Amino acid sequence: MVDFIGIERVRELVARRGAQRFIAELAQEIEADFVRWDAFEKSPRHASHSKVGVIELMPACDGRLYAFKYVNGHPSNTRVGLLTVTAFGVLADVETGYPLLLSELTLTTALRTAATCALAARRMARPDSRVMALIGNGAQSEFQTLAFHDMLGVREVRLFDTDAGATDKLERNLARLHLPGLKVVRCASTAAAVAGADIVTTVTADKCNATILTPEMIAPGMHLNAVGGDCPGKTELHPDILRRPDVRVVVEFEPQSRIEGEIQQMDAAYPVTELTRVLAGSAPGRAAAHEVTVFDSVGFALEDFSSLRYLMRVHQEERGTQRQIDLVPDLEDPKDLFALLADARGGAQRTAERAGVTA
Amino acid sequence: MVDFIGIERVRELVARRGAQRFIAELAQEIEADFVRWDAFEKSPRHASHSKVGVIELMPACDGRLYAFKYVNGHPSNTRVGLLTVTAFGVLADVETGYPLLLSELTLTTALRTAATCALAARRMARPDSRVMALIGNGAQSEFQTLAFHDMLGVREVRLFDTDAGATDKLERNLARLHLPGLKVVRCASTAAAVAGADIVTTVTADKCNATILTPEMIAPGMHLNAVGGDCPGKTELHPDILRRPDVRVVVEFEPQSRIEGEIQQMDAAYPVTELTRVLAGSAPGRAAAHEVTVFDSVGFALEDFSSLRYLMRVHQEERGTQRQIDLVPDLEDPKDLFALLADARGGAQRTAERAGVTA
Repeated sequence: MVDFIGIERVRELVARRGAQRFIAELAQEIEADFVRWDAFEKSPRHASHSKVGVIELMPACDGRLYAFKYVNGHPSNTRVGLLTVTAFGVLADVETGYPLLLSELTLTTALRTAATCALAARRMARPDSRVMALIGNGAQSEFQTLAFHDMLGVREVRLFDTDAGATDKLERNLARLHLPGLKVVRCASTAAAVAGADIVTTVTADKCNATILTPEMIAPGMHLNAVGGDCPGKTELHPDILRRPDVRVVVEFEPQSRIEGEIQQMDAAYPVTELTRVLAGSAPGRAAAHEVTVFDSVGFALEDFSSLRYLMRVHQEERGTQRQIDLVPDLEDPKDLFALLADARGGAQRTAERAGVTA
Repeated sequence: MVDFIGIERVRELVARRGAQRFIAELAQEIEADFVRWDAFEKSPRHASHSKVGVIELMPACDGRLYAFKYVNGHPSNTRVGLLTVTAFGVLADVETGYPLLLSELTLTTALRTAATCALAARRMARPDSRVMALIGNGAQSEFQTLAFHDMLGVREVRLFDTDAGATDKLERNLARLHLPGLKVVRCASTAAAVAGADIVTTVTADKCNATILTPEMIAPGMHLNAVGGDCPGKTELHPDILRRPDVRVVVEFEPQSRIEGEIQQMDAAYPVTELTRVLAGSAPGRAAAHEVTVFDSVGFALEDFSSLRYLMRVHQEERGTQRQIDLVPDLEDPKDLFALLADARGGAQRTAERAGVTA
């Protein structure tokens, strides 16, 4: 039997733990894994592209545990009432190859993405950052707000989305959250939202080179948290922002980000720093107050590895509805797989007789 | 909600359908997909190797449906009462990226491997083949026997395994099956089992170059169904068998088989034929009665794609226990993922207050 965390169970776990504590604990796990970067077998994800979207498999392994995530990205899904991104994943034991946990990762991906962005921003944004522009007010925007409020001390969010309904929804959700000291400001354009912000978070979903941020919007000292550009042909930053002499770009896993991140717009020699070095303290996230820092987030399998291990722990710690599913067989004699078909034998024989299959 | 086929459900489906009918129908689906080979996006599987085994992800896509299988291979598992191979997989909709079905594939892999081997043998073995040597009497041996009895007309199986207990188990299971006209002969060695056989099936599990079959065992006209050698460093045939002038080797997907199959022992120019051509009739499976034919089976993602689609159909057709799991969210507003955390909001707030997280 394999442990199963479905949507209901993850809701329950987040409710019991509290969303901000959940994100903060998740960030701790992710940070610890990024610091022991060399312990992991890493590979760019396997992507299957179609005209309308992409389906990806993201494996990671530390020699003791193996994890993979299935995730899709279909921007037009929202038009038919479906999510742009859904995901699930499995944690398995390297020693036996047996799966240990199957979990939903749609909600968890939003939580872990926010956690990773906040981790990076803690090292990259100016310490006095309090104002965040939030461009793109869709499915991930509340999670980014929760993480940056708690982990960075953001006290003002400035909202903009081309879909006013998305901003309505975000305002409504944030009002209900009553996050201590948080001021929510609705803006008329990206430029208006970005003006005066310390941190600019872009979480837009269009599958194209969208140029959400242009060079004239960017002021010295800003931290850009570029989340929405995460596959080939999908970017949010004008390349001239990346060409600024005072820019510093941090990525998760360089080989993957060269293909999927904002830096796909630059040549292969464009300098970037991997997040592991920033979190381990061997490279600065920011070297001077005037620098423009960019976290070119695309999402890396390691973050899902950490998430699945964290979910497993919380699942064991928190009471409530613990379910298991019979995804793998439990056999008396492992060489006797056929024993499972005890019932089927009679069936096979009956079928053979009915069908006149004889010597 | 996503349809779920666990061990109990697949047992039920095989019982209701009958094992030999299940395998034969599965073979039809696999054959139909191999014939439309060019419709598929194909890639060698993603493998994560450890000292004791391997964990693999095997994706396939035809532009309408996407499937992947998770499968491990851990030969030493049987020592601790676990299976060498376990597997599960998912069928998804390319249009939306949403998963449709999660299914066990441990039992199903054994069924589909037997189905694929029998499909190949129908085109490659001499039509008068009636005697099959079965070297390796473990988890897959009953399935191979069922498939070759039904689809090829095999009427004598000659058994050998270095583990006498495995042969005991196979004999017992075959006796209970009462397959019409089937004679079961226990042999003292591989050589004794192979002598006089028309078809030689090797399904051994050691993770090493094991040389189960040596050149002097092979007679003109034999068909070798080499199933057990299926990853780098894991082969069953002495390379001199592959160097015979009268040998004809068929593989599933050449780029993968060059890495994982028996032909990993040969150089890159060694001639092979892909199964799609044999099944489509554009290349012969056997050109003369005296040829030694080899189906170098490693297992390809397409076979699992076909299996998952077949399982989905049978699952819908056959009554019984139909389960669903909440693997992906069902939202009123797809941009409002956060709505799922309605319960968690209070929790977040309470946690924030408890922890004194204030402005």
